[in-house]
Amino acid sequence: MFSPLIEELIRALRCLPSVGPKSAQRMAMYLLEKDPDAAVLLARSLTQAVEKVGRCNQCRILTEEVVCALCNNSRREQAFLCVVETPADVLAIEQAGNYHGRYFVLHGHLSPIDGIGPEDLGISLLEQRLANEPLQELIVATNPTVEGEATAHYIAECARAHGVAVSRIAHGVPIGGELEYIDGGTLAHAFHSRTAFFPAAE
Amino acid sequence: MFSPLIEELIRALRCLPSVGPKSAQRMAMYLLEKDPDAAVLLARSLTQAVEKVGRCNQCRILTEEVVCALCNNSRREQAFLCVVETPADVLAIEQAGNYHGRYFVLHGHLSPIDGIGPEDLGISLLEQRLANEPLQELIVATNPTVEGEATAHYIAECARAHGVAVSRIAHGVPIGGELEYIDGGTLAHAFHSRTAFFPAAE
Repeated sequence: MFSPLIEELIRALRCLPSVGPKSAQRMAMYLLEKDPDAAVLLARSLTQAVEKVGRCNQCRILTEEVVCALCNNSRREQAFLCVVETPADVLAIEQAGNYHGRYFVLHGHLSPIDGIGPEDLGISLLEQRLANEPLQELIVATNPTVEGEATAHYIAECARAHGVAVSRIAHGVPIGGELEYIDGGTLAHAFHSRTAFFPAAE
Repeated sequence: MFSPLIEELIRALRCLPSVGPKSAQRMAMYLLEKDPDAAVLLARSLTQAVEKVGRCNQCRILTEEVVCALCNNSRREQAFLCVVETPADVLAIEQAGNYHGRYFVLHGHLSPIDGIGPEDLGISLLEQRLANEPLQELIVATNPTVEGEATAHYIAECARAHGVAVSRIAHGVPIGGELEYIDGGTLAHAFHSRTAFFPAAE
Protein backbone atom coordinates (compact mmCIF):
# COMPACT_ATOMS: atom_id res chain seq x y z
CA MET A 1 0.00 0.00 0.00
CA PHE A 2 2.69 2.51 1.01
CA SER A 3 5.77 3.15 -1.12
CA PRO A 4 8.79 0.88 -0.45
CA LEU A 5 10.78 3.36 1.67
CA ILE A 6 7.78 4.06 3.89
CA GLU A 7 7.03 0.33 4.24
CA GLU A 8 10.66 -0.18 5.22
CA LEU A 9 10.46 2.58 7.82
CA ILE A 10 7.27 1.05 9.26
CA ARG A 11 9.00 -2.35 9.45
CA ALA A 12 12.05 -0.76 11.11
CA LEU A 13 9.87 1.00 13.71
CA ARG A 14 8.29 -2.32 14.66
CA CYS A 15 11.60 -3.38 16.18
CA LEU A 16 10.75 -1.06 19.10
CA PRO A 17 9.23 -2.85 22.10
CA SER A 18 5.41 -2.77 22.25
CA VAL A 19 5.09 -1.09 18.86
CA GLY A 20 2.70 -3.03 16.61
CA PRO A 21 1.86 -2.49 12.95
CA LYS A 22 -0.71 0.27 13.61
CA SER A 23 1.54 2.27 15.94
CA ALA A 24 4.51 1.87 13.61
CA GLN A 25 2.42 3.21 10.75
CA ARG A 26 1.22 6.15 12.82
CA MET A 27 4.78 6.92 13.91
CA ALA A 28 6.07 6.79 10.32
CA MET A 29 3.28 9.07 9.08
CA TYR A 30 3.80 11.47 11.97
CA LEU A 31 7.54 11.73 11.43
CA LEU A 32 7.33 12.14 7.66
CA GLU A 33 4.39 14.51 7.66
CA LYS A 34 4.79 16.55 10.80
CA ASP A 35 8.30 16.32 12.15
CA PRO A 36 11.06 15.23 9.73
CA ASP A 37 13.59 17.19 11.83
CA ALA A 38 12.83 14.97 14.81
CA ALA A 39 13.30 11.93 12.57
CA VAL A 40 16.74 13.15 11.48
CA LEU A 41 17.66 13.82 15.11
CA LEU A 42 16.43 10.39 16.15
CA ALA A 43 18.44 8.73 13.38
CA ARG A 44 21.58 10.59 14.40
CA SER A 45 21.04 9.84 18.07
CA LEU A 46 20.49 6.12 17.38
CA THR A 47 23.65 5.89 15.29
CA GLN A 48 25.76 7.72 17.86
CA ALA A 49 24.42 5.72 20.80
CA VAL A 50 24.91 2.36 19.08
CA GLU A 51 28.43 3.36 18.05
CA LYS A 52 29.65 4.77 21.34
CA VAL A 53 27.66 3.30 24.21
CA GLY A 54 29.30 0.31 25.80
CA ARG A 55 29.52 -1.05 29.32
CA CYS A 56 31.15 0.49 32.36
CA ASN A 57 34.42 -1.29 33.15
CA GLN A 58 33.42 -1.65 36.79
CA CYS A 59 29.67 -2.16 36.99
CA ARG A 60 28.74 -3.07 33.39
CA ILE A 61 25.99 -0.44 33.23
CA LEU A 62 25.45 1.07 29.75
CA THR A 63 27.57 4.19 29.26
CA GLU A 64 29.84 5.81 26.69
CA GLU A 65 32.50 6.44 29.37
CA VAL A 66 35.10 3.87 30.43
CA VAL A 67 33.88 4.10 34.01
CA CYS A 68 30.33 5.37 34.60
CA ALA A 69 29.33 8.40 36.65
CA LEU A 70 27.94 6.21 39.45
CA CYS A 71 31.18 4.25 39.87
CA ASN A 72 33.18 7.50 39.63
CA ASN A 73 31.09 9.17 42.31
CA SER A 74 33.27 9.11 45.41
CA ARG A 75 30.31 9.96 47.64
CA ARG A 76 28.70 6.56 47.00
CA GLU A 77 29.29 4.12 49.82
CA GLN A 78 32.16 1.76 48.93
CA ALA A 79 30.98 -0.89 51.36
CA PHE A 80 27.77 -1.88 49.56
CA LEU A 81 27.39 -3.49 46.16
CA CYS A 82 23.95 -4.21 44.71
CA VAL A 83 23.60 -6.80 41.94
CA VAL A 84 20.74 -6.24 39.46
CA GLU A 85 19.69 -7.80 36.18
CA THR A 86 19.28 -4.69 33.98
CA PRO A 87 20.24 -1.00 33.81
CA ALA A 88 16.53 -0.18 34.19
CA ASP A 89 16.64 -1.85 37.61
CA VAL A 90 19.44 0.55 38.60
CA LEU A 91 17.22 3.44 37.58
CA ALA A 92 14.28 2.09 39.61
CA ILE A 93 16.46 1.72 42.74
CA GLU A 94 18.00 5.18 42.22
CA GLN A 95 14.52 6.67 41.95
CA ALA A 96 13.51 5.01 45.23
CA GLY A 97 16.46 7.00 46.57
CA ASN A 98 17.42 5.19 49.78
CA TYR A 99 20.36 3.11 48.52
CA HIS A 100 23.67 4.92 48.34
CA GLY A 101 26.08 2.12 47.48
CA ARG A 102 27.28 0.91 44.08
CA TYR A 103 25.86 -1.47 41.51
CA PHE A 104 26.76 -4.42 39.40
CA VAL A 105 24.63 -5.07 36.30
CA LEU A 106 24.38 -8.66 35.06
CA HIS A 107 22.53 -7.85 31.82
CA GLY A 108 20.35 -10.92 32.24
CA HIS A 109 20.10 -13.98 34.46
CA LEU A 110 21.44 -17.52 34.40
CA SER A 111 19.45 -19.48 31.86
CA PRO A 112 21.07 -22.77 30.75
CA ILE A 113 18.23 -23.34 28.26
CA ASP A 114 19.21 -20.15 26.40
CA GLY A 115 22.89 -20.92 26.84
CA ILE A 116 23.42 -18.03 29.27
CA GLY A 117 26.07 -18.98 31.81
CA PRO A 118 28.08 -17.09 34.46
CA GLU A 119 30.59 -15.79 31.90
CA ASP A 120 27.80 -13.99 30.00
CA LEU A 121 26.78 -12.20 33.20
CA GLY A 122 30.29 -10.96 33.97
CA ILE A 123 30.56 -13.04 37.13
CA SER A 124 34.37 -13.13 36.84
CA LEU A 125 34.41 -9.32 37.01
CA LEU A 126 32.09 -9.50 40.02
CA GLU A 127 34.44 -12.00 41.69
CA GLN A 128 37.37 -9.66 41.09
CA ARG A 129 35.45 -6.90 42.85
CA LEU A 130 34.51 -9.27 45.69
CA ALA A 131 38.19 -10.15 46.09
CA ASN A 132 39.72 -6.67 45.76
CA GLU A 133 37.22 -4.16 47.16
CA PRO A 134 36.56 -3.48 50.85
CA LEU A 135 32.98 -4.73 50.60
CA GLN A 136 30.84 -5.08 53.70
CA GLU A 137 27.74 -6.46 52.03
CA LEU A 138 26.59 -7.71 48.64
CA ILE A 139 22.86 -7.06 48.11
CA VAL A 140 21.30 -9.34 45.51
CA ALA A 141 18.35 -7.61 43.80
CA THR A 142 17.71 -9.95 40.87
CA ASN A 143 14.06 -10.45 39.94
CA PRO A 144 11.96 -12.88 42.01
CA THR A 145 11.55 -15.27 39.05
CA VAL A 146 12.84 -18.83 38.80
CA GLU A 147 15.89 -17.69 36.82
CA GLY A 148 16.41 -14.63 39.02
CA GLU A 149 16.36 -16.81 42.16
CA ALA A 150 18.82 -19.30 40.65
CA THR A 151 21.11 -16.41 39.71
CA ALA A 152 20.78 -14.98 43.23
CA HIS A 153 21.85 -18.30 44.75
CA TYR A 154 24.82 -18.60 42.41
CA ILE A 155 25.98 -15.08 43.29
CA ALA A 156 25.40 -15.67 47.01
CA GLU A 157 27.74 -18.68 46.85
CA CYS A 158 30.41 -16.55 45.13
CA ALA A 159 30.14 -13.90 47.83
CA ARG A 160 30.35 -16.51 50.58
CA ALA A 161 33.48 -17.97 48.95
CA HIS A 162 35.05 -14.51 49.19
CA GLY A 163 33.90 -14.03 52.76
CA VAL A 164 31.56 -11.14 51.93
CA ALA A 165 28.19 -10.95 53.70
CA VAL A 166 25.36 -11.33 51.19
CA SER A 167 21.67 -10.42 51.43
CA ARG A 168 18.59 -10.67 49.23
CA ILE A 169 16.08 -7.81 49.01
CA ALA A 170 12.72 -8.64 50.63
CA HIS A 171 9.80 -9.94 48.59
CA GLY A 172 6.20 -9.78 49.72
CA VAL A 173 3.08 -7.66 49.57
CA PRO A 174 3.90 -4.25 47.96
CA ILE A 175 3.49 -1.22 50.23
CA GLY A 176 0.02 0.23 49.61
CA GLY A 177 -1.09 -3.02 48.01
CA GLU A 178 -4.33 -4.68 49.07
CA LEU A 179 -4.16 -8.32 50.12
CA GLU A 180 -7.34 -8.98 48.16
CA TYR A 181 -5.58 -8.28 44.87
CA ILE A 182 -2.21 -9.91 45.56
CA ASP A 183 -1.44 -13.19 43.78
CA GLY A 184 -1.19 -16.41 45.79
CA GLY A 185 2.52 -16.94 45.19
CA THR A 186 3.39 -13.54 46.64
CA LEU A 187 1.06 -14.05 49.61
CA ALA A 188 2.53 -17.47 50.34
CA HIS A 189 6.01 -15.97 50.21
CA ALA A 190 4.94 -13.09 52.45
CA PHE A 191 3.66 -15.57 55.08
CA HIS A 192 6.74 -17.72 54.82
CA SER A 193 9.06 -14.73 55.16
CA ARG A 194 7.13 -13.07 57.99
CA THR A 195 9.27 -11.16 60.50
CA ALA A 196 8.76 -11.05 64.27
CA PHE A 197 6.98 -7.93 65.52
CA PHE A 198 9.04 -7.96 68.70
CA PRO A 199 12.38 -9.59 67.93
CA ALA A 200 13.42 -11.84 70.81
CA ALA A 201 15.84 -10.11 73.14
CA GLU A 202 19.24 -11.74 72.85
CA MET B 1 21.06 9.30 35.79
CA PHE B 2 21.97 7.79 32.38
CA SER B 3 25.04 8.86 30.44
CA PRO B 4 24.59 11.86 28.09
CA LEU B 5 24.28 9.86 24.83
CA ILE B 6 21.64 7.59 26.34
CA GLU B 7 19.74 10.57 27.76
CA GLU B 8 19.84 12.13 24.30
CA LEU B 9 18.51 8.94 22.70
CA ILE B 10 15.67 8.79 25.25
CA ARG B 11 14.82 12.43 24.48
CA ALA B 12 14.91 11.73 20.74
CA LEU B 13 12.61 8.71 21.09
CA ARG B 14 10.05 10.87 22.90
CA CYS B 15 9.38 12.66 19.61
CA LEU B 16 7.43 9.57 18.56
CA PRO B 17 3.67 9.89 19.04
CA SER B 18 2.34 8.39 22.29
CA VAL B 19 5.81 7.58 23.61
CA GLY B 20 6.28 8.99 27.11
CA PRO B 21 9.41 9.06 29.27
CA LYS B 22 9.01 5.50 30.56
CA SER B 23 8.44 3.96 27.11
CA ALA B 24 11.29 5.98 25.61
CA GLN B 25 13.61 4.70 28.32
CA ARG B 26 12.47 1.12 27.78
CA MET B 27 12.96 1.49 24.02
CA ALA B 28 16.46 2.94 24.43
CA MET B 29 17.49 0.17 26.84
CA TYR B 30 16.01 -2.49 24.59
CA LEU B 31 17.78 -1.21 21.48
CA LEU B 32 21.16 -0.75 23.17
CA GLU B 33 21.08 -3.97 25.16
CA LYS B 34 19.22 -6.42 22.99
CA ASP B 35 19.09 -5.24 19.42
CA PRO B 36 21.68 -2.66 18.30
CA ASP B 37 21.38 -3.99 14.74
CA ALA B 38 17.72 -2.99 14.67
CA ALA B 39 18.71 0.46 15.94
CA VAL B 40 21.22 0.88 13.10
CA LEU B 41 18.59 -0.28 10.61
CA LEU B 42 16.03 2.11 12.06
CA ALA B 43 18.49 5.02 11.88
CA ARG B 44 19.28 4.24 8.25
CA SER B 45 15.62 3.84 7.36
CA LEU B 46 14.68 7.14 9.04
CA THR B 47 17.44 9.01 7.22
CA GLN B 48 16.54 7.52 3.85
CA ALA B 49 12.82 8.10 4.26
CA VAL B 50 13.24 11.72 5.37
CA GLU B 51 15.64 12.35 2.49
CA LYS B 52 13.68 10.75 -0.30
CA VAL B 53 10.00 10.63 0.58
CA GLY B 54 8.03 13.52 -0.83
CA ARG B 55 4.54 13.94 -2.18
CA CYS B 56 2.99 12.39 -5.27
CA ASN B 57 2.68 14.97 -8.04
CA GLN B 58 -0.94 14.04 -8.63
CA CYS B 59 -2.51 13.08 -5.30
CA ARG B 60 0.00 14.45 -2.76
CA ILE B 61 0.23 11.14 -0.91
CA LEU B 62 3.62 10.45 0.70
CA THR B 63 5.89 8.56 -1.70
CA GLU B 64 9.46 8.55 -2.98
CA GLU B 65 8.21 8.28 -6.59
CA VAL B 66 7.19 11.29 -8.70
CA VAL B 67 3.75 9.73 -9.20
CA CYS B 68 2.59 7.16 -6.64
CA ALA B 69 1.62 3.55 -7.35
CA LEU B 70 -2.07 4.30 -6.81
CA CYS B 71 -2.14 7.14 -9.35
CA ASN B 72 -0.09 5.03 -11.78
CA ASN B 73 -2.44 2.06 -11.47
CA SER B 74 -4.46 2.12 -14.70
CA ARG B 75 -7.01 -0.29 -13.24
CA ARG B 76 -8.23 2.37 -10.77
CA GLU B 77 -11.42 4.08 -11.92
CA GLN B 78 -10.60 7.44 -13.49
CA ALA B 79 -14.08 8.79 -12.87
CA PHE B 80 -13.91 8.97 -9.06
CA LEU B 81 -11.69 11.13 -6.91
CA CYS B 82 -11.81 10.88 -3.11
CA VAL B 83 -10.50 13.78 -1.02
CA VAL B 84 -9.04 12.86 2.40
CA GLU B 85 -7.11 14.69 5.09
CA THR B 86 -4.18 12.32 5.65
CA PRO B 87 -2.33 9.40 4.02
CA ALA B 88 -3.56 7.21 6.90
CA ASP B 89 -7.13 7.90 5.73
CA VAL B 90 -6.19 6.51 2.31
CA LEU B 91 -4.94 3.36 3.99
CA ALA B 92 -8.15 2.99 6.02
CA ILE B 93 -10.30 3.33 2.87
CA GLU B 94 -8.07 0.92 0.93
CA GLN B 95 -8.39 -1.61 3.73
CA ALA B 96 -12.18 -1.30 3.61
CA GLY B 97 -11.66 -2.35 0.00
CA ASN B 98 -14.81 -1.19 -1.79
CA TYR B 99 -13.54 2.06 -3.32
CA HIS B 100 -11.64 1.69 -6.57
CA GLY B 101 -11.15 5.29 -7.65
CA ARG B 102 -8.27 7.67 -6.95
CA TYR B 103 -7.38 9.92 -4.07
CA PHE B 104 -6.36 13.43 -3.25
CA VAL B 105 -4.61 14.02 0.08
CA LEU B 106 -4.96 17.46 1.68
CA HIS B 107 -2.44 16.87 4.49
CA GLY B 108 -4.65 18.73 6.92
CA HIS B 109 -7.82 20.83 6.93
CA LEU B 110 -8.65 24.50 6.62
CA SER B 111 -7.84 26.19 9.89
CA PRO B 112 -7.57 29.99 9.75
CA ILE B 113 -6.54 30.10 13.44
CA ASP B 114 -3.41 28.06 12.60
CA GLY B 115 -2.88 29.98 9.37
CA ILE B 116 -3.75 26.98 7.21
CA GLY B 117 -5.46 28.15 4.03
CA PRO B 118 -6.40 26.50 0.70
CA GLU B 119 -2.88 26.92 -0.73
CA ASP B 120 -1.47 24.74 2.10
CA LEU B 121 -3.89 21.97 1.22
CA GLY B 122 -2.96 21.95 -2.49
CA ILE B 123 -6.42 23.12 -3.55
CA SER B 124 -4.96 24.66 -6.74
CA LEU B 125 -3.66 21.21 -7.76
CA LEU B 126 -7.10 19.78 -6.95
CA GLU B 127 -8.74 22.45 -9.13
CA GLN B 128 -6.38 21.56 -12.00
CA ARG B 129 -7.50 17.95 -11.71
CA LEU B 130 -11.16 19.01 -11.54
CA ALA B 131 -10.63 21.05 -14.72
CA ASN B 132 -8.57 18.56 -16.73
CA GLU B 133 -9.64 15.05 -15.75
CA PRO B 134 -12.78 13.26 -16.92
CA LEU B 135 -14.20 13.15 -13.36
CA GLN B 136 -17.72 11.91 -12.75
CA GLU B 137 -17.79 12.44 -9.01
CA LEU B 138 -15.70 13.99 -6.27
CA ILE B 139 -16.16 12.19 -2.95
CA VAL B 140 -15.28 14.31 0.07
CA ALA B 141 -14.09 12.12 2.95
CA THR B 142 -12.65 14.72 5.32
CA ASN B 143 -13.21 14.07 9.02
CA PRO B 144 -16.59 14.96 10.56
CA THR B 145 -15.06 17.70 12.74
CA VAL B 146 -15.75 21.43 12.55
CA GLU B 147 -12.63 22.03 10.45
CA GLY B 148 -13.21 18.92 8.35
CA GLU B 149 -16.76 20.06 7.57
CA ALA B 150 -15.59 23.56 6.67
CA THR B 151 -12.96 22.05 4.39
CA ALA B 152 -15.58 19.77 2.83
CA HIS B 153 -17.81 22.75 2.03
CA TYR B 154 -14.93 24.68 0.51
CA ILE B 155 -14.01 21.74 -1.73
CA ALA B 156 -17.63 21.11 -2.66
CA GLU B 157 -17.88 24.69 -3.93
CA CYS B 158 -14.70 24.20 -6.01
CA ALA B 159 -16.14 21.04 -7.56
CA ARG B 160 -19.44 22.75 -8.30
CA ALA B 161 -17.58 25.61 -10.00
CA HIS B 162 -15.97 23.04 -12.29
CA GLY B 163 -19.27 21.27 -12.94
CA VAL B 164 -18.23 18.05 -11.20
CA ALA B 165 -20.76 16.19 -9.06
CA VAL B 166 -19.66 16.15 -5.44
CA SER B 167 -20.71 13.93 -2.54
CA ARG B 168 -19.88 13.57 1.15
CA ILE B 169 -19.44 10.16 2.78
CA ALA B 170 -22.26 9.27 5.20
CA HIS B 171 -21.93 9.90 8.92
CA GLY B 172 -24.04 8.17 11.53
CA VAL B 173 -24.14 5.16 13.82
CA PRO B 174 -21.20 2.81 13.00
CA ILE B 175 -22.16 -0.64 11.67
CA GLY B 176 -22.21 -3.04 14.61
CA GLY B 177 -22.43 -0.09 17.02
CA GLU B 178 -25.01 -0.06 19.80
CA LEU B 179 -27.24 3.00 20.05
CA GLU B 180 -26.83 2.93 23.82
CA TYR B 181 -23.14 3.77 23.55
CA ILE B 182 -23.26 6.28 20.67
CA ASP B 183 -22.70 9.95 21.54
CA GLY B 184 -25.56 12.43 21.23
CA GLY B 185 -24.03 14.38 18.36
CA THR B 186 -23.71 11.29 16.20
CA LEU B 187 -27.24 10.14 17.06
CA ALA B 188 -28.68 13.58 16.28
CA HIS B 189 -26.85 13.52 12.93
CA ALA B 190 -28.07 9.99 12.24
CA PHE B 191 -31.70 11.05 12.79
CA HIS B 192 -31.29 14.19 10.74
CA SER B 193 -29.68 12.27 7.84
CA ARG B 194 -32.12 9.32 7.91
CA THR B 195 -32.89 7.79 4.52
CA ALA B 196 -36.30 6.53 3.30
CA PHE B 197 -36.75 2.77 3.61
CA PHE B 198 -38.84 2.72 0.42
CA PRO B 199 -37.65 5.58 -1.79
CA ALA B 200 -40.66 7.22 -3.48
CA ALA B 201 -41.11 5.95 -7.04
CA GLU B 202 -40.42 8.77 -9.47
